[in-house]
Amino acid sequence: MTYCVAVRVDQGLVMLSDTRTNAGMDNIARFRKSFTYLVEGERAITLMCSGNLSITQGVKATLSKAIKDARLDPDVETILNCSTMHRVAQIVGDAMRAMQTRYRESIEMGGSGASASIMIAGQRRGGKPRLYLVYSAGNFIEATEDTPFFQIGEHKYGKPILDRIIKRETTLEDATKAVLVSMDSTLRSNLSVGMPLDLTVIPTDRFDFRVRTRIEADNEEFAMISQSWSAALRKGFEDLPNVLD
Amino acid sequence: MTYCVAVRVDQGLVMLSDTRTNAGMDNIARFRKSFTYLVEGERAITLMCSGNLSITQGVKATLSKAIKDARLDPDVETILNCSTMHRVAQIVGDAMRAMQTRYRESIEMGGSGASASIMIAGQRRGGKPRLYLVYSAGNFIEATEDTPFFQIGEHKYGKPILDRIIKRETTLEDATKAVLVSMDSTLRSNLSVGMPLDLTVIPTDRFDFRVRTRIEADNEEFAMISQSWSAALRKGFEDLPNVLD
Repeated sequence: MTYCVAVRVDQGLVMLSDTRTNAGMDNIARFRKSFTYLVEGERAITLMCSGNLSITQGVKATLSKAIKDARLDPDVETILNCSTMHRVAQIVGDAMRAMQTRYRESIEMGGSGASASIMIAGQRRGGKPRLYLVYSAGNFIEATEDTPFFQIGEHKYGKPILDRIIKRETTLEDATKAVLVSMDSTLRSNLSVGMPLDLTVIPTDRFDFRVRTRIEADNEEFAMISQSWSAALRKGFEDLPNVLD
Repeated sequence: MTYCVAVRVDQGLVMLSDTRTNAGMDNIARFRKSFTYLVEGERAITLMCSGNLSITQGVKATLSKAIKDARLDPDVETILNCSTMHRVAQIVGDAMRAMQTRYRESIEMGGSGASASIMIAGQRRGGKPRLYLVYSAGNFIEATEDTPFFQIGEHKYGKPILDRIIKRETTLEDATKAVLVSMDSTLRSNLSVGMPLDLTVIPTDRFDFRVRTRIEADNEEFAMISQSWSAALRKGFEDLPNVLD
């Protein structure tokens, strides 16, 4: 399983993913699910992947191949040189559709699922910060003011805190705390989501990453967030009014 | 959808269910999912149902028919006169299996799902408080010290708070607050779970209900819990340590 969450607020974009992959409960591995792309001062993009790993790795390989080819032939369109973030989503969607067309039938014949989804968060100079969610069919949706965050994978445990906190006016600082708390709740309730975590933060109009880091299991800041949140919940719970006479 | 939660702590049993039923998003109705059975001073039992409504109503009708028949013929075994809570679970499981045998194939031919599950919480004089979860196949499991609560239906949103709070030593008061908070989180995040709620509390060795009430949408105590919890989360969130430098 997987848990990835991406938030778009006025101040920018925050993305967090876990790293656990499993093919059944007895075959657990660690794979990075967040991937960053940077053209300094021009565009910063994070992709986060969930679902069939061979499909999402194939999509990534397609994107990377194009970037490599563009070094020799600048006419090759890539997510690093295309004109808009919307076009980035289309390119990722096209790569997704190509992978699905190629493998879906044979994967499903083997009894596995080929579904996958990819979140794209980023901003290019001249555009606004954008957040997209690409589905298996290659189609995609964009986060709007009404829906300022997307989740993929094991999303339910960590949704209540996001529903309560995240609005477009939420600060980048608070959005970062909120995704960490959301992940903390998910880690506690579902064994198939696991540390370490990958966190990226892209402030509005910086066209660069403010944070692009891996949070290991022994990370003190995350432990502090986790413990403070536990303590706050316990305190808040103790302070609730009595309901039995 | 549905959300039902049942907790077994040393001090007794707490059960809470919503009342929303839907066959698709455009066909929403209200049905009671909690049903109580009382032989004063001898046994108190709550059943909570989720899944295919025709199946669970059929199970309940079977149980009621037996109770009625036993008035004329005391040899008829019912959930009110059988020897143990374990036997109650068997009787419910047998009724479930009979309904599945009768209807499952035809229900599935029509494209619907026939799955259902029923939680049974109660205590009879001479026995301990027990909590069982009966599956579609009629088999069942019992809550143990390691797993002091069961949830059926839309369980994920409301699980983190239960994971944090509920232990066997938790008081009946705290267990009641915890299921209300758990329901509150679920109501906020999933439209297909809805008010009013049915709450029952069976204290250990009382063989009676301490609480057997419907919580309507305008209930002031529930609103207080909901608001206090919101405020506590917001306060706790504000007090979290900063993570961006």
